[in-house]
Amino acid sequence: MITVISGTNREGNVSVSVAQTVLELLTNSKVDAQLLDLRKLPVDFAFRNDVFGNPDPGFSAIASQFVGNADKFVFVVPEYNGSIPGVCKAFIDAVWPEQFKGKKAALIGLSSGRAGNVRGLDHLTNILNYLQVAVQPMKTSINHIDKHLNEDGFLEDERILMTIQQELAKLVEF
Amino acid sequence: MITVISGTNREGNVSVSVAQTVLELLTNSKVDAQLLDLRKLPVDFAFRNDVFGNPDPGFSAIASQFVGNADKFVFVVPEYNGSIPGVCKAFIDAVWPEQFKGKKAALIGLSSGRAGNVRGLDHLTNILNYLQVAVQPMKTSINHIDKHLNEDGFLEDERILMTIQQELAKLVEF
Amino acid sequence: MITVISGTNREGNVSVSVAQTVLELLTNSKVDAQLLDLRKLPVDFAFRNDVFGNPDPGFSAIASQFVGNADKFVFVVPEYNGSIPGVCKAFIDAVWPEQFKGKKAALIGLSSGRAGNVRGLDHLTNILNYLQVAVQPMKTSINHIDKHLNEDGFLEDERILMTIQQELAKLVEF
Amino acid sequence: MITVISGTNREGNVSVSVAQTVLELLTNSKVDAQLLDLRKLPVDFAFRNDVFGNPDPGFSAIASQFVGNADKFVFVVPEYNGSIPGVCKAFIDAVWPEQFKGKKAALIGLSSGRAGNVRGLDHLTNILNYLQVAVQPMKTSINHIDKHLNEDGFLEDERILMTIQQELAKLVEF
Repeated sequence: MITVISGTNREGNVSVSVAQTVLELLTNSKVDAQLLDLRKLPVDFAFRNDVFGNPDPGFSAIASQFVGNADKFVFVVPEYNGSIPGVCKAFIDAVWPEQFKGKKAALIGLSSGRAGNVRGLDHLTNILNYLQVAVQPMKTSINHIDKHLNEDGFLEDERILMTIQQELAKLVEF
Repeated sequence: MITVISGTNREGNVSVSVAQTVLELLTNSKVDAQLLDLRKLPVDFAFRNDVFGNPDPGFSAIASQFVGNADKFVFVVPEYNGSIPGVCKAFIDAVWPEQFKGKKAALIGLSSGRAGNVRGLDHLTNILNYLQVAVQPMKTSINHIDKHLNEDGFLEDERILMTIQQELAKLVEF
Repeated sequence: MITVISGTNREGNVSVSVAQTVLELLTNSKVDAQLLDLRKLPVDFAFRNDVFGNPDPGFSAIASQFVGNADKFVFVVPEYNGSIPGVCKAFIDAVWPEQFKGKKAALIGLSSGRAGNVRGLDHLTNILNYLQVAVQPMKTSINHIDKHLNEDGFLEDERILMTIQQELAKLVEF
Repeated sequence: MITVISGTNREGNVSVSVAQTVLELLTNSKVDAQLLDLRKLPVDFAFRNDVFGNPDPGFSAIASQFVGNADKFVFVVPEYNGSIPGVCKAFIDAVWPEQFKGKKAALIGLSSGRAGNVRGLDHLTNILNYLQVAVQPMKTSINHIDKHLNEDGFLEDERILMTIQQELAKLVEF
């Protein structure tokens, strides 16, 4: 089971639309996959969670379903202040490390600017490696993301879609 | 005005006690200083804030007092999963970038293990530089933090206290 | 005295032409400045140097003139394999740390691709901070560098030149 | 074929002794392995190489034997100025990227200080991922390396040897 994580909770974010595209590409290829949209987290999860204590049962259920039950992850992460969103790291911090350990991940970075969140993907790689998650080295960085979305807010740039498709194929084999 | 930021909201964390020591060292040296304990943030601040929208007035007041009104910062940050706490980055993401821009910071890392959060300080340096905050290059890393606290939970290792004192003196001149 | 370091020794590199432009901008502003072109290093400097032992006198003279006698640096560094050139780090490793300590630097990144070496600038910031060199947080990243050079191989994009000018002004005040 | 790379060329370095121990552990487990000691590189390799041009035939033979013919790598890297040795990155820059692409690596960090080169391993991970080399997430960091060597200069700390053994087993399966 692959969990696609849309790595921000900001309203109107485009990461979730890219994450939905990733989900479709996986399910079209007959791969079991599910989407975790960080907007669905309990709003106080950073204060009440599995690691810090007093977890909302809703949070624990999410951690269990989307991390514990998965064996691979695709993180779709926008660039906030030169790194990954704090909320994405706060989510990782809130889950028992054992639920991540020994699993595998692929990373996709987005930015409105030109660097496509390459720095954030570096940080996230190091964080995941710390948790004993192997990171597939092909990583897609999409810069100027707004230029690549169609009227409905979905990715339709063929070249980018093919790159993501290739990265997902590598994750499946990884 | 220097704001000392205790960079985690976990109950029973030791960063806040180190941050209180930093505050005392500054006020003893007649430097205007105040302490921001991230446990005092509204529990839903990662979902409602100045940047994402619909901010709790309590959050905006905190951002204004502790970031907008300060010209320097001391970040006291424990190591969570090989980096800074997600909640600390989520706080930075939640504040208007203009409130950080052009200011200065000193960093202190803590870890229960041996590396003293040197990786987290690297990440935080890059994030702050992105926000046009200059980082004072002398950074104190305290490893095996639990061994350096007295019965009341405060730092009493003379060597570490002198190192922090020296770092603070450099921040004041920076 | 500001030393502008052209951070690669590859023949036909464009960093040296950007470094020459930086030198001119500084001298036009009546700032004392000199250029260190890493192509001028003894070809065996990575094996014989001040730190490793058996230094070529030519190397020691370069280290002394361009590091020891300078109080500020501008590093112009292209992106090689997602970071700074190895030769640039090898040069830093070959110089006595005391010759860098307590000084200040500004960084300019170049890439033929789109990210403008933002990752390399992050790595270099962390390395310089380790050596107690303060890094000015405004950093210019020039991507697609080849599109911004004129027929003679010099930068002539007005917007980039103004950004560099602004970064240099900040370094002078830093 | 696994190539163990001793990541520095400094005379009297301890990385090469750790690399020899790694080589022995691999060959004792009937794994094909060879050792590349960076002290054996042509002293001018950073100026004459496969990528920069005018390569010494000796260098090309080394690149071909130790990178081209290997499918996995173990990098043993000491901490120099908060990162990997410049000479190690210069070696990576000097080899055709195609010779690294699609391969796998495990990393071992050393330091005389307490952090065990965790920062350098982060940088090296990002550099290798850039080259499409997958990095095994378990990474051994050996701090205070001098305390762990016997009179003959070899590692004899049982706990560390078992950790390395475990990391190598993971690399073989990776």
